[in-house]
Amino acid sequence: MTFSMISHLSCPKCKETYSPKTIQQLCVCGSPLLVDYDLEAVKKSLTKEDLQDRDQSLWRYHELLPVQDENDIVSFEEGMTPLLPMPALGKVFDIPHLYIKDEGMVPTGSFKARGASVGISKAKELGVQHLAMPTNGNAGAAWSLYAAKAGITAHIVMPEDAPEITRKEVSISGAHLYLVNGLISDAGKIVADVVKQQGFYDASTLKEPYRIEGKKTMGYEIAEQSQWELPDVILYPTGGGVGLIGIYKVLRELQQLGWIEGQRLPRLVAVQSEGCAPIVKAFEEGKMESDFWENSQTHAFGINVPKAIGDFLVLDAIYQTEGCAIAVSEDDIRSTQKDVARIEGQFVCPEGASTFAAARYLRETNWIKADERVICLNTGQGIKYPDAFDVHAPVLEPNERISFSSNI
Amino acid sequence: MTFSMISHLSCPKCKETYSPKTIQQLCVCGSPLLVDYDLEAVKKSLTKEDLQDRDQSLWRYHELLPVQDENDIVSFEEGMTPLLPMPALGKVFDIPHLYIKDEGMVPTGSFKARGASVGISKAKELGVQHLAMPTNGNAGAAWSLYAAKAGITAHIVMPEDAPEITRKEVSISGAHLYLVNGLISDAGKIVADVVKQQGFYDASTLKEPYRIEGKKTMGYEIAEQSQWELPDVILYPTGGGVGLIGIYKVLRELQQLGWIEGQRLPRLVAVQSEGCAPIVKAFEEGKMESDFWENSQTHAFGINVPKAIGDFLVLDAIYQTEGCAIAVSEDDIRSTQKDVARIEGQFVCPEGASTFAAARYLRETNWIKADERVICLNTGQGIKYPDAFDVHAPVLEPNERISFSSNI
Repeated sequence: MTFSMISHLSCPKCKETYSPKTIQQLCVCGSPLLVDYDLEAVKKSLTKEDLQDRDQSLWRYHELLPVQDENDIVSFEEGMTPLLPMPALGKVFDIPHLYIKDEGMVPTGSFKARGASVGISKAKELGVQHLAMPTNGNAGAAWSLYAAKAGITAHIVMPEDAPEITRKEVSISGAHLYLVNGLISDAGKIVADVVKQQGFYDASTLKEPYRIEGKKTMGYEIAEQSQWELPDVILYPTGGGVGLIGIYKVLRELQQLGWIEGQRLPRLVAVQSEGCAPIVKAFEEGKMESDFWENSQTHAFGINVPKAIGDFLVLDAIYQTEGCAIAVSEDDIRSTQKDVARIEGQFVCPEGASTFAAARYLRETNWIKADERVICLNTGQGIKYPDAFDVHAPVLEPNERISFSSNI
Repeated sequence: MTFSMISHLSCPKCKETYSPKTIQQLCVCGSPLLVDYDLEAVKKSLTKEDLQDRDQSLWRYHELLPVQDENDIVSFEEGMTPLLPMPALGKVFDIPHLYIKDEGMVPTGSFKARGASVGISKAKELGVQHLAMPTNGNAGAAWSLYAAKAGITAHIVMPEDAPEITRKEVSISGAHLYLVNGLISDAGKIVADVVKQQGFYDASTLKEPYRIEGKKTMGYEIAEQSQWELPDVILYPTGGGVGLIGIYKVLRELQQLGWIEGQRLPRLVAVQSEGCAPIVKAFEEGKMESDFWENSQTHAFGINVPKAIGDFLVLDAIYQTEGCAIAVSEDDIRSTQKDVARIEGQFVCPEGASTFAAARYLRETNWIKADERVICLNTGQGIKYPDAFDVHAPVLEPNERISFSSNI
């Protein structure tokens, strides 16, 4: 059986098609390209049950991934992250069937590892030797480390105020790191110039078609871990929106595979910060594309994306699934991050916290019903953002003792 | 079938036995207690093959763990971490069969999660409401978050210069955090006073008998992931040494279960820093216990333990398996951390890096043979130690461009 059932690349805008055997970036029309598979062939040769005994990584779905030679895979066993119930927080929120999909449990501590594993593997297969990308931190970290494993040289440009820890990850991998006194959109312009100047592979979000294939595996895992009974709502912290686009792509693939027959699709929710909410604004205005968000700012750095190249795909996914887009405040993100840790013992990242804040709000307004199964996507570990809050603790001398005023 | 096959607790020094149904700390003789199981009963009711279809967490070994009621389990799906080949680094080291057991892939980003999951679960089962513990950072972080999930209040004392990120984890969980201007041994004295004063559960290393049961599961996983063919050498970064004691305990359990018949046990290697090497000194002198290491210092903070309460168990495990203890320099730890990242794309913690530095040295001296299968234990993520090295990167203005002097 063929390892990958990839057939070709296609443009969601102008419908032009491309070969997956050579390097492709954007469509000639400027749109991102998507990967198509021979789903009829997959349907004939693969069943849901076949998956059960496979490796505990996203590569268990290899027929539905773009890498054609198994030997090209660059992997640290990313994927099959926990899908855990949160009964205590669910009680507080009045959402008894509240779940976390915990993407902190992957190499490099963020869900960017999924895109990096598939993106770098395919780049290796295509013979890429140098790549360049702008990043808000975590993607650059993941791609640098996977590139090191693959023997590819990475050139990474990130905002100076991106989480400092991600600089360390890029640097130690041996990648070339540049900081910019600006936003990821400024980093993007620098990368575009490098790509033009040097002919490097452009690994910017959605400018290569394979990162999304890695991210989409979150959708397959949610379905498989739910015994192929889809949840009612999935909340996703939305910057570039690749994960949400990917999950929607999987829902469509699942329909074509006949693996979710008769089921209603989960309502997809794009969660943003009030400091950077271009998708929310477009959604509220019923538009198909977003406008550039001026002076964007949020401490949930991964969703500080003022204009996403795949915005039209994100909005389409929301509309098609009868989902919504919602912005939460910086204060809500901070307080919810604490609530999740204190009540459920999970130190989620600010982006992840935003989805819980949104779930609470959407339940309060009854957009989410009490009996619905709701999955919040935590896209990374809280420890990657040590500056998100301050700690005040007493400092003792070695001979000092703690005094308790009364028994506790 | 019984969920746990625990029978009793016993003292490795004076052989006194205790009940696992009530709270136990040290033996009356001052030694740590170990957990015994009815291994004959396990042997009759569980086969290696039975394990294959179980959950991907350390709780797959529940018969060999101390929690008696499944409902008491506090888990975030810790365990079954990747065991990955490192062919490129293995080539550099002339160890073709070099592997990493990557304990960065657990909740809270360090192997301390194993001890916390089992330790907190059992504490919950025993009705503990308050616990206190000294920590070099990662254990406190893990125990605080698992305690939050269990509804147990944690009181944590850590050195002021322990990794700052672990303070954040303790704090956000709602635990009571105290810093001490000293070492973990000073923190230990403060905790001992709190325990005496308030009657809190003492969760210090080996002062409760269950943390080791969580840590030991690394041994079961190494065996299972190696298809029950044990490796030749396992290198372990040794502070308190609980993991090494636990792995040796598993090797003995595996023998009694008849699951590794006729196999030679892996040689266990305790790796320390030259700045804190009490076990190495004791080993070189052929002693059964270590002396307090004065003015200990290492940037691999987790192994900065000047005198481990379980030192005699660590040394016994080394002697019984014909292993060794070895100290590596701070510079070697730093340069090896970079080598692992650049060559294999893995950002290991300094403690983990020390095991690779030791493996290289032991191969050079031919203590490790070229055809041996060697497993290095990486106990946590590099990102938890952002201060381990500095990053120098150029800072660009938004309108600046990168200039390449010539094509690469």
